[in-house]
Amino acid sequence: MFNKITIIGCGLIGSSLLRAIDKKKLSKEINVFDKSKEASEFVKKNLSAKVFNNVAESVLGSDLVIISSPLSSYKEILLSIKSNLKKDVILTDTGSAKKEINKIISNLNLDNVHWISSHPIAGTEFSGPESGFAELLKDRWCILSTENQKETQQLSLLKKFWEALGSKVKFMSFEDHDYVLSLTSHLPHAIAYSIIRTVTKNDDKFKDEIIQYSASGLRDFTRIAASDPIMWRDIFIDNSENILKVLDSFSESLEEIKKAIKSKNSDKLNSIFSSTRKLRKEIIKAGQETDKPNFGRK
Amino acid sequence: MFNKITIIGCGLIGSSLLRAIDKKKLSKEINVFDKSKEASEFVKKNLSAKVFNNVAESVLGSDLVIISSPLSSYKEILLSIKSNLKKDVILTDTGSAKKEINKIISNLNLDNVHWISSHPIAGTEFSGPESGFAELLKDRWCILSTENQKETQQLSLLKKFWEALGSKVKFMSFEDHDYVLSLTSHLPHAIAYSIIRTVTKNDDKFKDEIIQYSASGLRDFTRIAASDPIMWRDIFIDNSENILKVLDSFSESLEEIKKAIKSKNSDKLNSIFSSTRKLRKEIIKAGQETDKPNFGRK
Repeated sequence: MFNKITIIGCGLIGSSLLRAIDKKKLSKEINVFDKSKEASEFVKKNLSAKVFNNVAESVLGSDLVIISSPLSSYKEILLSIKSNLKKDVILTDTGSAKKEINKIISNLNLDNVHWISSHPIAGTEFSGPESGFAELLKDRWCILSTENQKETQQLSLLKKFWEALGSKVKFMSFEDHDYVLSLTSHLPHAIAYSIIRTVTKNDDKFKDEIIQYSASGLRDFTRIAASDPIMWRDIFIDNSENILKVLDSFSESLEEIKKAIKSKNSDKLNSIFSSTRKLRKEIIKAGQETDKPNFGRK
Repeated sequence: MFNKITIIGCGLIGSSLLRAIDKKKLSKEINVFDKSKEASEFVKKNLSAKVFNNVAESVLGSDLVIISSPLSSYKEILLSIKSNLKKDVILTDTGSAKKEINKIISNLNLDNVHWISSHPIAGTEFSGPESGFAELLKDRWCILSTENQKETQQLSLLKKFWEALGSKVKFMSFEDHDYVLSLTSHLPHAIAYSIIRTVTKNDDKFKDEIIQYSASGLRDFTRIAASDPIMWRDIFIDNSENILKVLDSFSESLEEIKKAIKSKNSDKLNSIFSSTRKLRKEIIKAGQETDKPNFGRK
């Protein structure tokens, strides 16, 4: 499918891409750059790719360049690689917020570069190249966004690439992407971090009990709150406008529940708690969640 | 261990108890009452117990009576059974809030009844007798509380009973129980309901997208928000004092995160997000959570 692919940033997502590209033989060569020496060493020892110490050199001759590093690193990376990009290269990424990044890239006025952003909706609470696996992207959605939203040869090639990795592809504007993800991803993460913070700041006296009785609900939230801090810091800063808006909306919902608790309004509580059951059923039906009790935990 | 056990309310927990008692042969006879005809029919057809249509009759001659129905049903049940309870019966329950229930029972001035509350910290997002299974209580904690906290023959018998079901037993005061559980269980549930409400009220335009991209975080919260509405309505009303207090504390944590997002304070966000990773590791180490990525979901 490609002669040479460069992956910049080889963490959970980058290394999963690398493994899947290798397994499905989607490129004759794969170049990798990661600023962490430890990650680079891991890739050299365990995965099939040419590892570079210099990001500018890593993109030479590549048909597809994938940035898979924290959002705050994009600008420096782009400034380093821009003069080395091959004519008609497809430049993409795997970031979780799009609008601000697109502004940065547009301002660079890259010539003969096809910038199409990707967001594979996949991940785990682990990070680093040792956590990746080839099947991470299988049956997951990948959202593609471009400035003009025209169907081009490059857009359809990138679509085929993600599909070859097992993903299902959707097109969305940068703005819609950032709004929808603020609801489905950024809001839950902000809330999970807030809950864990509430629980851990509150009580040294009951610390052991909190850990012991976490199976009563809390443990579900600790998974998301264990996600990569740097990645999430950048997402919250990049998509701050949407996130603050949905957090306000969340606070309103919470106030509504608080009010019903305060007034011991059992009808209201019952109606709120009954209405929320439906969404999970729809998510399971859409193949995005297991129907096993407790996520099928063992 | 017992000659006759009565289980009042045969949903997820009650039916799991029934299955486990039967499997481990902890009682010569098991009586069951459930006010739902459907549940009673299910038990008759699929499980080993004598099913009663009348709650008062179901407790006759029982050595251990376990109330496993929503908190709001306790008072009526207790008034119905009180004159039929055997001398020196152990009366327990499986409810998730204790202080108010204990008041109700104390006010009934039951003679020759050993009231010791139980709270098995176990469950799934499913309800009804068809969702129960004998291993639900295995390796989970069960909290016992009594008024005087004296070690009695009955207390040690009840402890042995839960241990025979595979649970680990702890003693706590009613007050401490309700406070700790407000953090580990009631807070996460209130928040999960609020999140799902925020997401579903917000947008019909993006409804399909929200379901499709739920793997980016949201789906984790839908599990808890799919829990039994009646049970949770009762918990929030019974333990309202503690819950409102921890919800206020949660709102403070959330405001702290909001402020850091607003001011794009990346150091602060990084420090918040780094500190929350630790708790999950401790929960996994304590055997209360799987260490598999994504809860080991398939």
